[in-house]
Amino acid sequence: MNVHIPPVVSVTSGPLPASTKVYRAGTVHPEIRVPMRQIAVHPTAGEPPVTVYDSSGPFTDAAFTVDIAKGLPRLRQAWSQAHVEAYDGRALKPEDNGNLPEAKLTPAFPVQHRPLRAVGGKAVTQLAFARAGIVTPEMEFVAIRENLGRERATAALKRDGEPFSAVTPDFITPEWVRDEVASGRAIIPANINHPELEPMAIGRNFLVKINANIGNSAVTSSMAEEVEKMVWAIRWGADTVMDLSTGRNIHNIRDWIIRNAPVPIGTVPLYQALEKVDGIAENLTWEVYRDTLIEQAEQGVDYFTVHAGLRLRHIPLTVERVTGIVSRGGSIMAKWCLHHHRESFLYEHFEEICDICRMYDVSFSLGDGLRPGSIADANDAAQFAELDTLGELTQIAWAKDCQVMIEGPGHVPMHKIKENVERQVKVCGDAPFYTLGPLVTDIAPGYDHITSGIGAAMIGWFGTAMLCYVTPKEHLGLPDRDDVKVGVITYKIAAHAADLAKGHPAAQLRDDALSRARFEFRWEDQFNLSLDPETARLFHDATLPKEAHKTAHFCSMCGPKFCSMKISHDIRAEAQKEGMEAMAQKYRDGGDLYMPAGE
Amino acid sequence: MNVHIPPVVSVTSGPLPASTKVYRAGTVHPEIRVPMRQIAVHPTAGEPPVTVYDSSGPFTDAAFTVDIAKGLPRLRQAWSQAHVEAYDGRALKPEDNGNLPEAKLTPAFPVQHRPLRAVGGKAVTQLAFARAGIVTPEMEFVAIRENLGRERATAALKRDGEPFSAVTPDFITPEWVRDEVASGRAIIPANINHPELEPMAIGRNFLVKINANIGNSAVTSSMAEEVEKMVWAIRWGADTVMDLSTGRNIHNIRDWIIRNAPVPIGTVPLYQALEKVDGIAENLTWEVYRDTLIEQAEQGVDYFTVHAGLRLRHIPLTVERVTGIVSRGGSIMAKWCLHHHRESFLYEHFEEICDICRMYDVSFSLGDGLRPGSIADANDAAQFAELDTLGELTQIAWAKDCQVMIEGPGHVPMHKIKENVERQVKVCGDAPFYTLGPLVTDIAPGYDHITSGIGAAMIGWFGTAMLCYVTPKEHLGLPDRDDVKVGVITYKIAAHAADLAKGHPAAQLRDDALSRARFEFRWEDQFNLSLDPETARLFHDATLPKEAHKTAHFCSMCGPKFCSMKISHDIRAEAQKEGMEAMAQKYRDGGDLYMPAGE
Repeated sequence: MNVHIPPVVSVTSGPLPASTKVYRAGTVHPEIRVPMRQIAVHPTAGEPPVTVYDSSGPFTDAAFTVDIAKGLPRLRQAWSQAHVEAYDGRALKPEDNGNLPEAKLTPAFPVQHRPLRAVGGKAVTQLAFARAGIVTPEMEFVAIRENLGRERATAALKRDGEPFSAVTPDFITPEWVRDEVASGRAIIPANINHPELEPMAIGRNFLVKINANIGNSAVTSSMAEEVEKMVWAIRWGADTVMDLSTGRNIHNIRDWIIRNAPVPIGTVPLYQALEKVDGIAENLTWEVYRDTLIEQAEQGVDYFTVHAGLRLRHIPLTVERVTGIVSRGGSIMAKWCLHHHRESFLYEHFEEICDICRMYDVSFSLGDGLRPGSIADANDAAQFAELDTLGELTQIAWAKDCQVMIEGPGHVPMHKIKENVERQVKVCGDAPFYTLGPLVTDIAPGYDHITSGIGAAMIGWFGTAMLCYVTPKEHLGLPDRDDVKVGVITYKIAAHAADLAKGHPAAQLRDDALSRARFEFRWEDQFNLSLDPETARLFHDATLPKEAHKTAHFCSMCGPKFCSMKISHDIRAEAQKEGMEAMAQKYRDGGDLYMPAGE
Repeated sequence: MNVHIPPVVSVTSGPLPASTKVYRAGTVHPEIRVPMRQIAVHPTAGEPPVTVYDSSGPFTDAAFTVDIAKGLPRLRQAWSQAHVEAYDGRALKPEDNGNLPEAKLTPAFPVQHRPLRAVGGKAVTQLAFARAGIVTPEMEFVAIRENLGRERATAALKRDGEPFSAVTPDFITPEWVRDEVASGRAIIPANINHPELEPMAIGRNFLVKINANIGNSAVTSSMAEEVEKMVWAIRWGADTVMDLSTGRNIHNIRDWIIRNAPVPIGTVPLYQALEKVDGIAENLTWEVYRDTLIEQAEQGVDYFTVHAGLRLRHIPLTVERVTGIVSRGGSIMAKWCLHHHRESFLYEHFEEICDICRMYDVSFSLGDGLRPGSIADANDAAQFAELDTLGELTQIAWAKDCQVMIEGPGHVPMHKIKENVERQVKVCGDAPFYTLGPLVTDIAPGYDHITSGIGAAMIGWFGTAMLCYVTPKEHLGLPDRDDVKVGVITYKIAAHAADLAKGHPAAQLRDDALSRARFEFRWEDQFNLSLDPETARLFHDATLPKEAHKTAHFCSMCGPKFCSMKISHDIRAEAQKEGMEAMAQKYRDGGDLYMPAGE
């Protein structure tokens, strides 16, 4: 037997500027430690550090030694695990990695664990526990995270937003989280075989989340690149990551990713199933698919995209479309259905898929195989017919205690966006909505992070719980590391803009802190409080690189004489000298020159 | 006397890929030639070229020889010029260029023309002509442009949008344009001293327009760079350009820009006035400002941003703001008012400003000196107090036959955007609205083209007529050429997304053509039809650089086996073989497996 020396995989690590990782302990569950990031500002500001949500995991903890070959600490293992047993999992098969010869195989992850599964027919999903009135460690973890470090006493802030039908309390409690999960309005994707996970929630009444896609294709990329993409994506703020690999080594690459992932990992099992039948869609079978579900559930995948809503009867509705079926999984299933003249095996076997998912707590992401891939196809009959079926499947999954979220479009012009949310709420029982953008125009390949960022911000405001990112490479090729970062930052912007517009109780604190730093020319603070401190500093350096420039009361946009913020300070100094009120009085007496507006 | 050899200024020229400049002649005014761009697609598509709006001027006409030292053809000179006279303009003064020694002076533009002005107290504005029932060459030029090359017979397309209170006919006529201008709902910024201009309109019922800002600052940039920025900005789609220079050589640089500008040029005369008093705001006087207005009007500036709405009484309303006054012009005026304890000289002399503007047809862009510069300050009392004053000034300007548009914010969270449009319509008599973004969050310096692109798309949909771009350098420094391009493309996206959402009759033609190209793997056509063909091709090349790749039925995102579009084609072929209807019938007979959704 060959001894495999684990490859040295280097990833980007270390804290972001001026940032410290802090942990808060639970009270219901004292064993949990919930990470947050604190960004310190200059002492002259006289302000406390700003605490922000932190999805980046131990990689940004200065006290943590990164070793990709070891994986992250298996923190959930110590939490109570009711109704589960360890067992000898399914044996690895050569087809799991695309039948590659050993020389071309990505090395196996050095440590293999026996998987856990439910016993006695019990469901071990967060939904089952929530319905039973149990507040799990995961639920409390989520509650603490969602409060962004605020204490209850200071939590009742002035609320200013238009939340539509979202309802978020000033202060999040573990019991409230339990109720949200029990109702199906939120999910906590948390496979019992992913103990490295730092739990998070996806739901209309929570902070809007974002997903980054990674994964190789037959044409390009490797394990080391994909692990770094995952670490890189969460560094910049991705809340979940989907591994959409379609090439070789799918199984082994996924192991390296999950064992090092502090965020939920999603997949589309159909892709690997298709690889196992050599890419011939017609040769897919329920058996191959079922086997793949178990393989991936044992590894620890937290949610599966399943295109069970695309039925044979829907396919004629796509024939007149401008861009047909743009979903990989959707097109594969449509091809299979037509070839066999049969109903989708995913639809027919859906209850059995539920039976597997409930044993491991793999959440469903019910796929939108018939999402529109062009403005012309937006909100058409094909799209909404599938949505109706997703509504039906949601009820079946819930009856089996499976957690469910619903995938959504796509390419949708702005005036058609709200209808998507309204329909989805009505048809799918208010399960969380998880959209890809949407792109609000087709005409800008190369800039589809922007065309979709616009739609994503809007649909997030209207109530969508998670936004799947789009990078500048969309429609053109596989994204590289730089594209991943730009996509993540764009979607953090969209999600945060949505939180602000919904009036989330703590969202505006960061905007205000950054704007105060800007106004006071605390340039380093402005950079450090921003979503991408490195780029902000780089852009400032482009014209003003010297250290002295970083406290200058101007920048190169306007120069020292024209800086409106500097002049604003002069105005305030002048006003204080005179006394605003004294001036106002003077001119009230002399005439109406200086009356407050509205008097 | 020294003989100045004009500098050689090179700018980017030549057509975009697959593009031809075409011209349509007028019928009411046969002397006009209206430019458009036609993008050809591959013969196999069996489709006509796609005609798109073209702001790039002769620089992209393969038949035109670019010579920056000559300037563009003075095409409007031949159009009838009623009620005007040529005269010896104001003499150039050293202060106009910042009192620079000759060695540091930007050379004067090689050809100096005697300026025109109205005679006999007449107004020569497009508004005056429109009210008199006259359809000017400018109005017909605009009508032909706005139809995007469509003929009346094919103009009645299926309209699909939510225009709010915008009303755009299927086919634009010169008479309809006249009515829009006469009502004040639209302006055609067209100084009689800017004969190089290709006229365009700004108004709620027209295509949404975008502005790019250029201009040096005391810290950086030069004439050659600024001329290239203007040519570069319009190449990518800027409809107007503002020269916001605040450094030296302001007069001479502006000459070079205007003489080479096929688009309207806007300025903020207060900046140059401030330079003339050595940057000391308190030393500004009405006389210096008035002289600057005439200087710039004689050069051919098409619109002036005038911060006449910021009154002394408004200033106390800004004291509690997080970011004070963020408008350069606004902060300068506020400083002057406070120092002198006097009402704004711009407000007091506003009618005299109108008297100047009406002699040259310089349009007003009534400045929003008190726009919010942070989320915290959005929609506050200061902002809306100034808007009320802008409404008052609009009526005064209209009474003097001056064209008017209204500037708007700023930093506004999504849920507060619509209120801005509704108030502006009510208060300003439906004059066109011209906003800066707005940015929907403060937390992403380095990405403010995106934070503002989101707000811009939305506010454009709600009825804003022109969107002022923001580049990635916003808040950090002066934009360079690359930033200008990214800002323009982002704002073309926002404007076009707004046109689509409003249901503009021809907007979707381009999205559909590009999506068809995408679906049919006509990669070159997809690139060429996009807003930035070079970048789209570059991104595709990043993983698939070979010529053969440009007709491949996949890209590196998914590879050949997983390309959903390729599979969609397979599906359609299969369906055709079988006959969709035959299949449907078969299963209707055998059971309900294959019924169209909804039956």
